Amino acid sequence: MDAVNHQIRLAARPDGLPKPSDWSHTEEPIPEELDEGQVLVKALYVSLDPAMRGWMNDARSYIAPVGVGEVMRALVAGRVVASKHPRRAVGDYVTGMLGVQEYGVVNGDGLGKVDTSLASLPTYLGTLGMPGMTAYFGLLDIGRPVEGETVVVSGAAGAVGGVVGQLAKLQGARAIGIAGGAEKCEYIAQELGFDAAIDYKAQDVREGLREHCRKGVDVYFDNVGGEILDAALARLARHARVVICGAISQYNADEQLVGPANYLSLLVNHATMTGFVVSDYGDRYLDGAREMAGWLAEGKIVAREDVATGGVERFPETFLGLFEGRNIGKLVLQVAQDE
Amino acid sequence: MDAVNHQIRLAARPDGLPKPSDWSHTEEPIPEELDEGQVLVKALYVSLDPAMRGWMNDARSYIAPVGVGEVMRALVAGRVVASKHPRRAVGDYVTGMLGVQEYGVVNGDGLGKVDTSLASLPTYLGTLGMPGMTAYFGLLDIGRPVEGETVVVSGAAGAVGGVVGQLAKLQGARAIGIAGGAEKCEYIAQELGFDAAIDYKAQDVREGLREHCRKGVDVYFDNVGGEILDAALARLARHARVVICGAISQYNADEQLVGPANYLSLLVNHATMTGFVVSDYGDRYLDGAREMAGWLAEGKIVAREDVATGGVERFPETFLGLFEGRNIGKLVLQVAQDE
Repeated sequence: MDAVNHQIRLAARPDGLPKPSDWSHTEEPIPEELDEGQVLVKALYVSLDPAMRGWMNDARSYIAPVGVGEVMRALVAGRVVASKHPRRAVGDYVTGMLGVQEYGVVNGDGLGKVDTSLASLPTYLGTLGMPGMTAYFGLLDIGRPVEGETVVVSGAAGAVGGVVGQLAKLQGARAIGIAGGAEKCEYIAQELGFDAAIDYKAQDVREGLREHCRKGVDVYFDNVGGEILDAALARLARHARVVICGAISQYNADEQLVGPANYLSLLVNHATMTGFVVSDYGDRYLDGAREMAGWLAEGKIVAREDVATGGVERFPETFLGLFEGRNIGKLVLQVAQDE
Repeated sequence: MDAVNHQIRLAARPDGLPKPSDWSHTEEPIPEELDEGQVLVKALYVSLDPAMRGWMNDARSYIAPVGVGEVMRALVAGRVVASKHPRRAVGDYVTGMLGVQEYGVVNGDGLGKVDTSLASLPTYLGTLGMPGMTAYFGLLDIGRPVEGETVVVSGAAGAVGGVVGQLAKLQGARAIGIAGGAEKCEYIAQELGFDAAIDYKAQDVREGLREHCRKGVDVYFDNVGGEILDAALARLARHARVVICGAISQYNADEQLVGPANYLSLLVNHATMTGFVVSDYGDRYLDGAREMAGWLAEGKIVAREDVATGGVERFPETFLGLFEGRNIGKLVLQVAQDE
């Protein structure tokens, strides 16, 4: 048995896309001593999310930055291998903020429970995890589409966007997805059941929105920012709701972030733009997760993950794939076999 | 008696600030024939509002553009000099969309009633007119400040901004105004009773907001756009409401409008940015006007106008003053004596 805990730490704050030298690879003994309430978890899958890029900046935000020299913060799905917590037993599958490492120690209260009879571990990092709940609260609490309305989502083949469109359909709304490339667009339309997909690499997004949103966009769920946000603003219906969930096009910008030049469309259309992060909904998280799990079990929504392999050392390169748009569905990195 | 109706027409669509050649001066006979329901109004005061600059562009918006060759659209306060309307009598004071001309014919149903025992005609174009009602609905319906919150308004010495701050105080909130120059800042703090004024020409707006909004900005009412909007976004409190009322810094921009680079502050703070125009509130306008008139009569709000003189021919030059920030309070142009 390998008694070493391999870790990926933040070595320097990146300018733009993280370079190999922004990371360090470290080894530590696997922790053996646990305090009361603590749990030792063996990581099986590490979650890779665009928001993690923001955590690497030294900026005031909704969460403190990862310190230089610290293990990179990440959500992990894994298995309990030692426990001094009354409700976490050895062998339990859990999710938690364990970081990019093979073994992590946390207080058991902060772990999420995984029911592997309902869904796989990667799904608990995706549709039943943070991205899925981001879609759930952002669309249902802020976007609030009603039957017959048109919902547009960017990053539609990603972990959040794919759920947004499916939830829009469940509400009786039309779902239009914006994504890059034919494969993603086919996935959105065929596998996820969106009404239409706009390939921003192959066609003008404004024209696509004109074609598919004849009466305007009632809800626009934005994961990307930049020109696509501007195109959607130009097409808002009256009383539209714009949900600001992320801005992946901007996270690695060297220069100052670009704001939406068409924001006065809010004025003309009596429209609203509202931002959020999923942690704002901490007190309603369990109710949401229960409802999502029900829809998944009934086949009303489908989940897909893009599973990279190769252990924690593959994290830096795999992470870049998010910003190159390589993944379809939720991107996770398998770091160990479940044995 | 002068039987000629002098008019100002839009001669060309301006690039940037309107030039003299963008206007034409015309003369027509004063209309003598009225249809049933029509009223002939002699203009006494013409309203000058930043939104009028938008009406001059050939762009899809909340209202059709003024056609080239047409009399410039404007709100006017005047006196009925002939009437075929059952409820409008000769001698009545009224407001209406009569355009920049000395005499206008309109259907009497579209006129607003003026009670000169309550307030002057210019006040009916300002605090009791479109700008006052813009402040009323924008702040109370969208901004919704509650006791103890901090409200910041830009263009605070203007027709809308000055009312916003006073209404914020009436709600028990703190009112911070942003304006250009010591005279305007003194007016805001002394005459209008704001808690503080930030002079954007003399100090850094971000520093001013840090100083006066220790716990952040709960409601930001924006009339200007550009860098000041960005500074306010950077200082939002959690669950802040940003009201997008106008963007006077951008109306004459030759290049593409600049969007708010700090819009992701909405995400971090679970904040909302909502736009509107006062005509969205047509069905509640009379109730609002009645409440505002009551507050004015009780001395709970004060009204001030900046009255230019010299007749309709002074309109083009007076209009430029709005964008140079020359006016304090509501800018109107007196076009005739009331005789």
